[in-house]
Amino acid sequence: MTRLAIADVLKGKAAIGSTVRIQGWVRTAQVKPTFAFINVHDGSGFHPIQVVAEDKLNNFQNEITKLTTGCSVDITGEVVPSPGKGQSVEIKAIEVKVLGWVENPETYPISPKPHSLEFLREQGHLRARTNVIGAVTRVRNCIAQAIHRFHHEQGFVWIASPIITASDCEGAGEMFRVSTLDMVNCPRGADGKPDYSQDFFGREAFLTVSGQLNAETYAMAMSKVYTFGPTFRAENSNTSRHLAEFWMVEPEIAFADLAGNADHAEAMLKYVFKAVLEERLDDMEFFAQRIEPTAISRLQTIIDSNFERMDYTEAVKILQASGQSFQFPVEWGMDLQSEHERYIAEKHVGRPVVMMNYPKDIKAFYMRLNDDGKTVAAMDVLAPGIGEIIGGSQREERLELFDRRLKEMQLPVENYWWYRDLRRYGTVPHSGFGLGLERCVAYVTGMQNVRDVIPFPRTPKSAEF
Amino acid sequence: MTRLAIADVLKGKAAIGSTVRIQGWVRTAQVKPTFAFINVHDGSGFHPIQVVAEDKLNNFQNEITKLTTGCSVDITGEVVPSPGKGQSVEIKAIEVKVLGWVENPETYPISPKPHSLEFLREQGHLRARTNVIGAVTRVRNCIAQAIHRFHHEQGFVWIASPIITASDCEGAGEMFRVSTLDMVNCPRGADGKPDYSQDFFGREAFLTVSGQLNAETYAMAMSKVYTFGPTFRAENSNTSRHLAEFWMVEPEIAFADLAGNADHAEAMLKYVFKAVLEERLDDMEFFAQRIEPTAISRLQTIIDSNFERMDYTEAVKILQASGQSFQFPVEWGMDLQSEHERYIAEKHVGRPVVMMNYPKDIKAFYMRLNDDGKTVAAMDVLAPGIGEIIGGSQREERLELFDRRLKEMQLPVENYWWYRDLRRYGTVPHSGFGLGLERCVAYVTGMQNVRDVIPFPRTPKSAEF
Repeated sequence: MTRLAIADVLKGKAAIGSTVRIQGWVRTAQVKPTFAFINVHDGSGFHPIQVVAEDKLNNFQNEITKLTTGCSVDITGEVVPSPGKGQSVEIKAIEVKVLGWVENPETYPISPKPHSLEFLREQGHLRARTNVIGAVTRVRNCIAQAIHRFHHEQGFVWIASPIITASDCEGAGEMFRVSTLDMVNCPRGADGKPDYSQDFFGREAFLTVSGQLNAETYAMAMSKVYTFGPTFRAENSNTSRHLAEFWMVEPEIAFADLAGNADHAEAMLKYVFKAVLEERLDDMEFFAQRIEPTAISRLQTIIDSNFERMDYTEAVKILQASGQSFQFPVEWGMDLQSEHERYIAEKHVGRPVVMMNYPKDIKAFYMRLNDDGKTVAAMDVLAPGIGEIIGGSQREERLELFDRRLKEMQLPVENYWWYRDLRRYGTVPHSGFGLGLERCVAYVTGMQNVRDVIPFPRTPKSAEF
Repeated sequence: MTRLAIADVLKGKAAIGSTVRIQGWVRTAQVKPTFAFINVHDGSGFHPIQVVAEDKLNNFQNEITKLTTGCSVDITGEVVPSPGKGQSVEIKAIEVKVLGWVENPETYPISPKPHSLEFLREQGHLRARTNVIGAVTRVRNCIAQAIHRFHHEQGFVWIASPIITASDCEGAGEMFRVSTLDMVNCPRGADGKPDYSQDFFGREAFLTVSGQLNAETYAMAMSKVYTFGPTFRAENSNTSRHLAEFWMVEPEIAFADLAGNADHAEAMLKYVFKAVLEERLDDMEFFAQRIEPTAISRLQTIIDSNFERMDYTEAVKILQASGQSFQFPVEWGMDLQSEHERYIAEKHVGRPVVMMNYPKDIKAFYMRLNDDGKTVAAMDVLAPGIGEIIGGSQREERLELFDRRLKEMQLPVENYWWYRDLRRYGTVPHSGFGLGLERCVAYVTGMQNVRDVIPFPRTPKSAEF
């Protein structure tokens, strides 16, 4: 008999009175004199299903009464209406096969009591068996699938930007070296430095910090592309918002200016949040109950609202006139801090804001210079409750201005030969942005630490499992 | 006026007589005395659209007659029936705006003449502008999207297996080290070896060779999961089939035995190939014409056929009785070579074969021992025209047998503590496999070298762009 997902049984996909087979793990088992309640979970949705096993089953005494949390079972039974609340059906067992026991229930790490998230991180190989990490895993999947679907429907082409890069021009943060050289007897050149010509790639190589520059090359042929892959930062930041390895979505759109870029970001966030509320309401109800009371309502607000567009310069005026005392006093030219972003999004506007046109001196070399000569066509999407969730820009497509900017920033023009080629051969206005998947999942679920929204977090001094 | 994708115009999404706006790059331009033909491409499909620009346009002499391959244009015009063959509509230009010129058409690398694939690899930032790499890019995207969609529809959860790993137990190939230690003055321990406790992760860390073991931990909670991410091999293999960085899909299915695993592999390949023929027939027609005559027909054959299941032991008998002279003589216990696999799939069976139950001595430590004590529940999917395209197995879920195997292979049990925990706590039968995305794209398109089916290939002595 074919296995049914428990979520499907709970959704009523099998008629009352029909026989079904489920397979999963015991969440809780409660033994009464003549029967047992077994709550079984298989990861297909938030809720386990209740199975009633009566003592006439031939392994009732031997096995069923000995079931504990974490045991694996293969159960065939009849779908019956449930008298309990919170579920419409349950299963009356015809056969309960025990597939795997828990070696020592007393020391099983995922016992049915509350565990701290810190403790669960140490149990990275088992923590998906908990309500909270299971729900995160399904929501994360839902978000990732929605991102792919949205871009595919819009005619975007997924591009695998390279993970290993020898490019000197990304410049977005500290990098990890990738090497096969012997660390003990590292071959040296005449200058005493490591001789990377003997390394695997024949040159010094690193893990990418962003796929943007590579994605731009493909946007100049396919028009609309996006990357969705891992990126890396070797920063020694032990915070709840930083990972050394994280997943990033980076659309790059030929022929789009900053306004088109902002429209795409807004449409994408709405599409993704809508998918979460439609497909994973079970998990979101849990987050709203236990983690972040506004988890559902704030997504709905974003879906329903028009994102405000605001210039950086206007925001500075608003902040200065706000009468608020900020930790960092506001003046034109500074990078806005989280306190400022949140004041604008939460207090002043009350809905998401696309902040645009930042001072060029606080932004990256590839951003397009505005006509005022002082600002660049950069944007950040600020969401109430988190601040910046997306950062992007229109790219400088004019070779002369790009070269001038390199010079200003004292960046070596020869490193950018292929990036400059895009400006020499059929250049077009183009824009793009980056969305960190983990920050997005953390925002959606209300989880406070990004280490809890990626299966196996990599952080300073930690690369477990 | 909103931009339309050229593929949509060619598909008839804009009515004859309506005005449309397209943006893209000139493929070819042909100037006649009173008008010009401009073929414009935007990556949205295989075919460019023909634009007819008459000399009454005010920039005809100044600009339009000077257009060359690679220039970027923004064109508004009327959709008219095309008298030319191979296309039903063309555009009669109302306005031709030139966005970007080609600096020196004589030296523009992507001139409209045939280029070798080797030359195009050196132009990795521009090669997506060619017919062949553009088509590969769209087919690759179609395959990736179909893989996500298929698994999502089947209730699988996408898992980000870690890219950086300190795990000693993957054992699938040579690894790249990931480090931030100073190579020149590498800190040493008392034993003279590098002191990795001072490294970023506090221990020696590598790039993953497979996400399987991590995926298994999530399958033991979510039931059906898959990874889809980059994996790495630091092997010095300079062949047309090897990349140092490649993308892999690895489903892992709790409660599935080897037969269920084979069924999933067959269903996935059929789903993906069907999506390619439905969504990318334009590109596939190009591959059939120019690269591999059977490109379309062999996919159709696979979609229509039932994959044969065959035991390794039976295959050995068939090969020995075949009367063929193989380079590697066949005997039970050996790893089958490509020549053997292709004989079975192409000559003996004539359709895809799932080869199962291989000698344990040629297979990995985690594969499930069969009752004969000699073979393990491993499988390879062999496709006509390529040989092995998928490799997988049922995993050893029985702790005692797993431990015995570790001992046999002299692997240190302590490295596998978390993998063993999965067998101690609610173990279940489970299976999975791996599909290399690049080998799949190469097979579908008929491209002979995997370096041409990934945007920026990483190989020994090469990590360009």
